[in-house]
Amino acid sequence: MKKDFKPYYAVIFTSTQKEDIEGYAEMANQMEALAKTQNGFLGMDSARNDTSTALSAGVGITVSYWESLEAIKNWKQHTEHLVAQQKGRQDWYSWYNVKICKVEREYKFNS
Amino acid sequence: MKKDFKPYYAVIFTSTQKEDIEGYAEMANQMEALAKTQNGFLGMDSARNDTSTALSAGVGITVSYWESLEAIKNWKQHTEHLVAQQKGRQDWYSWYNVKICKVEREYKFNS
Repeated sequence: MKKDFKPYYAVIFTSTQKEDIEGYAEMANQMEALAKTQNGFLGMDSARNDTSTALSAGVGITVSYWESLEAIKNWKQHTEHLVAQQKGRQDWYSWYNVKICKVEREYKFNS
Repeated sequence: MKKDFKPYYAVIFTSTQKEDIEGYAEMANQMEALAKTQNGFLGMDSARNDTSTALSAGVGITVSYWESLEAIKNWKQHTEHLVAQQKGRQDWYSWYNVKICKVEREYKFNS
């Protein structure tokens, strides 16, 4: 590990959605905006396969980055986020998987 | 942490690709097949946004899961994978970021 690297945390959210996801995009935008205002939020990356993709059709991965486990816990328990989670389980997601990870090393490439 | 949970490792690979990615799909398939034969390989999830997506157009996230840091190191240094990495930097990726993470907790939802 590089001496100047400070470990942080990643939440890997993997999911597939149902066919009818009315209201999802608006909620997702709201939640992303809200997450960015949380203490300890560092960033977020998100990608979802087109449903016509041969392999892993419709699979989505969102990774959010946080300074601490406490920041992740606070976000998980945020009132508006709890509403979104409930709605997600009820209406939008066929399945999802959440992994809480400690980022121990990182490297980058730019062409 | 649940008592029966055994920590493992995740490699989060985030990238955007250039416009012309001739040869990429074939190499990606080869590398996925090869990764699956490696000691300590546990699984892989992959998603990429369509280039017409308004937000994060073309961004892709691939997460691979491994039993140990040693397994990750061995895969990183695998001869055929080194060739693919070199080709990726030269021809296919505008940028990428690799994060090595320890998965400390996990939970799932199925509708």
